[in-house]
Amino acid sequence: MRKAFPFSAIVGQTEMKQALLMAAVEPRLGGVMVFGDRGTGKSTAVRALAALLPPMMIVPGCRYSCAPVDSAPCIEGCRERAGKAVQQVPVPFVDLPLGATEDRVVGSLDLERALATGEKRFEPGLLAKANRGFLYIDEINLLEDHLVDLLLDVAVSGQNVVEREGLSIRHPARFILVGSGNPEEGELRPQLLDRFGLSVDVRTPTDIGDRIEIVKRCDAFDREPDAFCARFEDAEHKVVDQIAAARKRLPKVEVPDSILELGTRLCQAVGADGLRGELTLLRAARATAALAGKKLVAPHHLASVATLALRHRMRKNVLDDTGSTARIERAVAELVAA
Amino acid sequence: MRKAFPFSAIVGQTEMKQALLMAAVEPRLGGVMVFGDRGTGKSTAVRALAALLPPMMIVPGCRYSCAPVDSAPCIEGCRERAGKAVQQVPVPFVDLPLGATEDRVVGSLDLERALATGEKRFEPGLLAKANRGFLYIDEINLLEDHLVDLLLDVAVSGQNVVEREGLSIRHPARFILVGSGNPEEGELRPQLLDRFGLSVDVRTPTDIGDRIEIVKRCDAFDREPDAFCARFEDAEHKVVDQIAAARKRLPKVEVPDSILELGTRLCQAVGADGLRGELTLLRAARATAALAGKKLVAPHHLASVATLALRHRMRKNVLDDTGSTARIERAVAELVAA
Amino acid sequence: MRKAFPFSAIVGQTEMKQALLMAAVEPRLGGVMVFGDRGTGKSTAVRALAALLPPMMIVPGCRYSCAPVDSAPCIEGCRERAGKAVQQVPVPFVDLPLGATEDRVVGSLDLERALATGEKRFEPGLLAKANRGFLYIDEINLLEDHLVDLLLDVAVSGQNVVEREGLSIRHPARFILVGSGNPEEGELRPQLLDRFGLSVDVRTPTDIGDRIEIVKRCDAFDREPDAFCARFEDAEHKVVDQIAAARKRLPKVEVPDSILELGTRLCQAVGADGLRGELTLLRAARATAALAGKKLVAPHHLASVATLALRHRMRKNVLDDTGSTARIERAVAELVAA
Amino acid sequence: MRKAFPFSAIVGQTEMKQALLMAAVEPRLGGVMVFGDRGTGKSTAVRALAALLPPMMIVPGCRYSCAPVDSAPCIEGCRERAGKAVQQVPVPFVDLPLGATEDRVVGSLDLERALATGEKRFEPGLLAKANRGFLYIDEINLLEDHLVDLLLDVAVSGQNVVEREGLSIRHPARFILVGSGNPEEGELRPQLLDRFGLSVDVRTPTDIGDRIEIVKRCDAFDREPDAFCARFEDAEHKVVDQIAAARKRLPKVEVPDSILELGTRLCQAVGADGLRGELTLLRAARATAALAGKKLVAPHHLASVATLALRHRMRKNVLDDTGSTARIERAVAELVAA
Amino acid sequence: MRKAFPFSAIVGQTEMKQALLMAAVEPRLGGVMVFGDRGTGKSTAVRALAALLPPMMIVPGCRYSCAPVDSAPCIEGCRERAGKAVQQVPVPFVDLPLGATEDRVVGSLDLERALATGEKRFEPGLLAKANRGFLYIDEINLLEDHLVDLLLDVAVSGQNVVEREGLSIRHPARFILVGSGNPEEGELRPQLLDRFGLSVDVRTPTDIGDRIEIVKRCDAFDREPDAFCARFEDAEHKVVDQIAAARKRLPKVEVPDSILELGTRLCQAVGADGLRGELTLLRAARATAALAGKKLVAPHHLASVATLALRHRMRKNVLDDTGSTARIERAVAELVAA
Amino acid sequence: MRKAFPFSAIVGQTEMKQALLMAAVEPRLGGVMVFGDRGTGKSTAVRALAALLPPMMIVPGCRYSCAPVDSAPCIEGCRERAGKAVQQVPVPFVDLPLGATEDRVVGSLDLERALATGEKRFEPGLLAKANRGFLYIDEINLLEDHLVDLLLDVAVSGQNVVEREGLSIRHPARFILVGSGNPEEGELRPQLLDRFGLSVDVRTPTDIGDRIEIVKRCDAFDREPDAFCARFEDAEHKVVDQIAAARKRLPKVEVPDSILELGTRLCQAVGADGLRGELTLLRAARATAALAGKKLVAPHHLASVATLALRHRMRKNVLDDTGSTARIERAVAELVAA
Repeated sequence: MRKAFPFSAIVGQTEMKQALLMAAVEPRLGGVMVFGDRGTGKSTAVRALAALLPPMMIVPGCRYSCAPVDSAPCIEGCRERAGKAVQQVPVPFVDLPLGATEDRVVGSLDLERALATGEKRFEPGLLAKANRGFLYIDEINLLEDHLVDLLLDVAVSGQNVVEREGLSIRHPARFILVGSGNPEEGELRPQLLDRFGLSVDVRTPTDIGDRIEIVKRCDAFDREPDAFCARFEDAEHKVVDQIAAARKRLPKVEVPDSILELGTRLCQAVGADGLRGELTLLRAARATAALAGKKLVAPHHLASVATLALRHRMRKNVLDDTGSTARIERAVAELVAA
Repeated sequence: MRKAFPFSAIVGQTEMKQALLMAAVEPRLGGVMVFGDRGTGKSTAVRALAALLPPMMIVPGCRYSCAPVDSAPCIEGCRERAGKAVQQVPVPFVDLPLGATEDRVVGSLDLERALATGEKRFEPGLLAKANRGFLYIDEINLLEDHLVDLLLDVAVSGQNVVEREGLSIRHPARFILVGSGNPEEGELRPQLLDRFGLSVDVRTPTDIGDRIEIVKRCDAFDREPDAFCARFEDAEHKVVDQIAAARKRLPKVEVPDSILELGTRLCQAVGADGLRGELTLLRAARATAALAGKKLVAPHHLASVATLALRHRMRKNVLDDTGSTARIERAVAELVAA
Repeated sequence: MRKAFPFSAIVGQTEMKQALLMAAVEPRLGGVMVFGDRGTGKSTAVRALAALLPPMMIVPGCRYSCAPVDSAPCIEGCRERAGKAVQQVPVPFVDLPLGATEDRVVGSLDLERALATGEKRFEPGLLAKANRGFLYIDEINLLEDHLVDLLLDVAVSGQNVVEREGLSIRHPARFILVGSGNPEEGELRPQLLDRFGLSVDVRTPTDIGDRIEIVKRCDAFDREPDAFCARFEDAEHKVVDQIAAARKRLPKVEVPDSILELGTRLCQAVGADGLRGELTLLRAARATAALAGKKLVAPHHLASVATLALRHRMRKNVLDDTGSTARIERAVAELVAA
Repeated sequence: MRKAFPFSAIVGQTEMKQALLMAAVEPRLGGVMVFGDRGTGKSTAVRALAALLPPMMIVPGCRYSCAPVDSAPCIEGCRERAGKAVQQVPVPFVDLPLGATEDRVVGSLDLERALATGEKRFEPGLLAKANRGFLYIDEINLLEDHLVDLLLDVAVSGQNVVEREGLSIRHPARFILVGSGNPEEGELRPQLLDRFGLSVDVRTPTDIGDRIEIVKRCDAFDREPDAFCARFEDAEHKVVDQIAAARKRLPKVEVPDSILELGTRLCQAVGADGLRGELTLLRAARATAALAGKKLVAPHHLASVATLALRHRMRKNVLDDTGSTARIERAVAELVAA
Repeated sequence: MRKAFPFSAIVGQTEMKQALLMAAVEPRLGGVMVFGDRGTGKSTAVRALAALLPPMMIVPGCRYSCAPVDSAPCIEGCRERAGKAVQQVPVPFVDLPLGATEDRVVGSLDLERALATGEKRFEPGLLAKANRGFLYIDEINLLEDHLVDLLLDVAVSGQNVVEREGLSIRHPARFILVGSGNPEEGELRPQLLDRFGLSVDVRTPTDIGDRIEIVKRCDAFDREPDAFCARFEDAEHKVVDQIAAARKRLPKVEVPDSILELGTRLCQAVGADGLRGELTLLRAARATAALAGKKLVAPHHLASVATLALRHRMRKNVLDDTGSTARIERAVAELVAA
Repeated sequence: MRKAFPFSAIVGQTEMKQALLMAAVEPRLGGVMVFGDRGTGKSTAVRALAALLPPMMIVPGCRYSCAPVDSAPCIEGCRERAGKAVQQVPVPFVDLPLGATEDRVVGSLDLERALATGEKRFEPGLLAKANRGFLYIDEINLLEDHLVDLLLDVAVSGQNVVEREGLSIRHPARFILVGSGNPEEGELRPQLLDRFGLSVDVRTPTDIGDRIEIVKRCDAFDREPDAFCARFEDAEHKVVDQIAAARKRLPKVEVPDSILELGTRLCQAVGADGLRGELTLLRAARATAALAGKKLVAPHHLASVATLALRHRMRKNVLDDTGSTARIERAVAELVAA
């Protein structure tokens, strides 16, 4: 209904914008968790990126937004039904509303039809709606753990498995999960945090000029959205082009073994648990290279994504109370410089 | 059913009346939170203002009170159905009753119709009823967090998104949210407080003359409402005119860059988190100027709204236990005087 | 079914009887809260007063006991239907049974009719039944807060607002709320206490003669109710007449400004929060004067109701651990004597 | 189904047997609470007394066991329907089973009939079934407070008031409430305890001879119930006669004022709260005199019931840790001897 | 479905086997509670005994497994319907599955029939199914207290009283209750423990030879059940014969008064509360004598069952921290030797 | 839908792979519990093994996947219906999704059919679906205890007993239960742990080469699954053959008494409670021998499975804080070397 604030009109917040661009280029990164102060435009940025993406092609009428050439056939046989026809729709952006019930999220029995015709049919939920798009959860730390767990399960596996009310359904649900939260309001369990690919730390800008500019832009957008958006049309096109080019280049970007070893050493140096950190580092560095127009991942690509990929995966070191970010930066300085 | 107490018959409580007038002029301010002692007439003031506003025009029969010339078309196509016809109704004032169920607030499936005709139709709730008017919640700190969250979400976005019982609805719900509460009975989370535009601190008047006058007026109103209201008819008309003029003037009021910088410096001086404070300062100052009949925002306008806009957004400073209000006043004195 | 114990046969308990008489004369006082030891006849007194009141006139068949000449028209158009006919019924006395469900209290959808005819009709609850009479809640401190809150809301506003199960109803519910409780079993929140007009402290009598007399009367009443009631018939008639005369006189009783100032000073002296205390003092003094057959409120009227009206509205003063009652009495002595 | 253990075959436990006999003679005493060790035959005694009472006359088919000459007419007009016919039934003994649902206790809507014929009819519950008999609750301290409260309310008022599921019913429910519990398993609130008329403290007998005799009798009864019961037939008849005679004599037993004063002084001496203690003393002494075949209550009658009537009504005295029973016995010794 | 492990193939665990045999001979003992380490074959032993018992005769088609010559007539009049016909069925063994709902345990309204024919019929639950057999509850300490209470009530009284869903049913439910639990996982309330007749303490055997033998037997049974069971066929028959003979002899076994006195002194010496301990001692000693082929109970019979009957009925003695078993054995040594 | 990661492509994690192979060879081992850090590929390994197993034969259309020559006849008489026909299906792998409801797990009344035809039919749940295959539960420590208990009950007994909603069903449910969990997120009760046959401790590999290889393989598999799987086809076939051979050899593998004694001594030396440890040791050693192609169990087989079988069964020794694994290894060294 309402126009979205232009992505390129966001002042500062480089780290958050970088993470969102990477997630748009490489969905295998596994979602972005945005931490931060209140009123720093977290949700504005996510909405802006989603609005920016070019429309996508689907099989007409498919309730799961199946792609016409997807390798996984739809459970409802949409392609057989629709033949060669295609339909163009905007990239889905699902904003999980507070109070959405679990059955609306995962889908449920279509009661209306069951009562009317006696037929048990699945009524797809928000996970189906988000297929091939974005699922945004504001204040994810206020959700119940088991729902977060379920969402992450689906985000990672790319499919929604439903076993309830006598239904046994499995449908594609590939989306970029973006969560936001305020650490002061309760933390996510480390187990859950680890399953997000990237994490971003957002702070209120302290530069006076930046702050005035932000207030002016917000006010201008609220009062005259059309005029405001027009000012940023060119900048927006550039972002769209950058994403499209990077997506196309991504499969061809190469990662030398030296880079893999560098990633492993980095993880060990900062004490990041498990291997998800290393895999994320690899993929994030590749996405960064693709966005930069390169075909080979270089050490500085790895360095530029280290905090995004590792910050939320570190054990607390009791003897060294340097913050996670500082410890990663120090390790990057030592290893990449070496 | 009952006549409302006249707005202009309220003795004292200047700050609360100022905040309510601003909210009536600039709905983008985002709601008013009224804190205060028991028995200080919080709810009386809100009811008085709502009763004072001139009636509004709607498309006849529209269940969402659509304006005939609104830019957002109604989800039920009311304008197509009604043509050029218009209908005049009082500004809605919805008083969220204690114990209202969530489905009555957000709306729900029209069960009666579903059972009778098999058709799934949305039964609008209190949020639809409050569209273009006021939503008042007494003792908001007793509501469950997730309901407060939901109400603030809707108040800020201006639309109600419903995802439940197989319904997927989005309808306009633009209202001025007014909450009241007693801090002794439990606090709102800072995260929620920040989303209210203005906050007012109401105290029992200590002046003997004022107290006697209040008791006399309450008693007189209770015993002979008509006679009492007649005494304040002229004063009420003046308030109506003032609001109408300010609304018309508002879009033309200008804010010089120096005022913006002043706002930013003020926020930094008092340590208000996030940027919502600055945006609210700007809008509140503009509304104040409009109410005062000015076309240019001056430093004293900003000064006069600083406590209203920032008091509830400050971090506790452990080393300086001056109250929030005092700290804001000191900062205003230093910066605006400078 | 059973005869009530005669009001005038109650031994001692002057304060409780005084409060109930005032509430019967001036319903705007806002309810009576009775605190006290077990076995002191709290509920006996309330039942006795209700049984004593003369029958009232209603529109025949009205489910809300509408008065034939009430200014607020009934939501079911009873007067149009019934014409000039009137019906005489006892003053309703509703004793909220433990375990009454919320929907029986506020009313609910008439399920039977909804299923049979498809029509949504409101089935009035206990609040409708109590209209123009008494609502008594024993051990009110055991009720859930939200239900107490709701009852007080209705008691103060005089109307019951229902927003549930797709119903949106508002009907008159003017009653005198009487709650009783034992402070040892859990306290009401100050916020709730403040909304009761008067509060009474009941104690077991210590005078041997009184105690023997009470036991004799209780036993006599239990064994031979008819004979016992006959003994007090004359005394009962006197009370009925006193109430009737006081009700008639009430609107004409005048309150000089000096009394208002005295009330305000009294509230400030004892530190009663808010203005409800002052308003209650004024109304209670007026009711006392009316019961005493006076047309002008005098200082001693105010003095005689001060503890009833203020005792439950005082902040605890940590440095002065004199009980509330003692502090009020001291303040009365100083101010009224002065 | 099974034969009951004979009342007169109970070894020892004089206090418990005395209390049950008094309750059978004077139902206004208000119930008996039995505290005690496990395995002391609490429930055996109550069942034994109930089985002992002579059958009673009811209106044939009445669902509330109305007496043919009762003064309170049945809500279902049973007498009009049945004319002069009478029916003889055993005195009802209702043993509240663990897990009985609230709707089975108070009664509920007759769903079967409602679904079949659309008629709303009340299905009486256990309270109706217990009318004019016994209601026994083992381990009453494990019941939820609100259910105990409700049962005591009904026991005291003699009627069951139902406000639920659209029903509004009031029917007679006069029964002798007997509760048992183990103080080690959780206490009743003092507020609830006070509403029981008498309380009994049961202990395991310590006399070897008694213990052997008890074990022998229990074993004999279990193995050959008929032979065992035959041995006690005469003794049982004597108890039946004693109860019948006492019931007839009770209304004529007189209580001199000196006895009343003695009761009051006793209550004050031991610090029993409220007046229920005194009223119970009076009634218990009268029942004792009636059982003893006297027409005038004497001081020793009062003395013999003092612990039963007061033990559970005393405040704990921190400075004097003598048990309640000891304190009452000391006071009795001083006052009655004086 | 699966063959049971032979009772006589159980290595060691004499105390547990003794208790189970006694319970099979004298059902009035009131159930067995088995405490013990994990993996000690508690449930294996109970299942083994049940499988061992000879089949029983029932009235054909009776839903409560009524015996053809039972003294308590079936609530469904099975004997009238079936005439002289009898049917042979295995002794029921009901294993209360985790998560069994309360209505499956006690029985409930037969919904299917109620909906189809409008007739209210009782659908018997597990308690009916267990009639005349065994009810086994593994990890009884994990059950909710109120369910344990209910099961013990039924076990002791031999009948199931149902008051729910408008049903009022009472049917025979005589079974041997066997519970098992691990004291480390939460204790039963003393009140509940006392209601079990016997308690057994099971420990992991420490003898190497025993342990190897157990492992060998378990493995052999798992791999070739038929061959394994054949090896123990003779031993099993001996146990069956022993039980049958003891059951027949039991009513004729006599208990001299000296034995009764010995039992009482024993209970007092160890401080077992209540009289259930003594009654159990008597019955257990009699069952032991019957199993041993004696017609007179001797002191050593009492001595051999003392720990089984009293261990769970003792108060903790703070000054003497000897375990319960040791204290009983000491008292037995002193008294029986004396 | 998606190809599984090849079992033989897993780098390191020898202990986990060994345990899974043993469970595939000897289902009587009773399930595997996998503890470990996040991101160590726990679920990958289980899925890999399941995908690797050869398809199995079932009776066509059987809802419980009955084997054509199974000794336990199906409750639905599938073999009678299907005759000699057989059907080939993959080994079932059921992944218990988070939020699966209890009725989907155990099965429930087929509501659809009950409403349509009035027939009560059982709708098999996930336990039926897992029959003869794997049931995998990720983060088992987040499941409610009673559900874990139920799953273990079924896993051990091989049958699912359902007593709910008027159904009384018992069907085969033989599966290998694999649970995984992170000890930092909450522990399983010792009682539950003991019921798992084997437990595995998984850690993040620390060898740089291994880590790089893992990341490379994961990335390669994600990007080109077909090519990646092709590389490991031969290795996979070898594993399949090894399992098939071991299964066939297992019944013939012999265990000398000296090995049994060694097992018992080992359990005593480390203080493992109960006898389940010994039985598991025996079976695990036999499975290991079978996998190694041996017909006689040797001491080193026992030694190689000691930690897997005993680690989760040891009491904490307060005086010796060596970890469980170290204590077992020390005992193995002493006893097996001896």
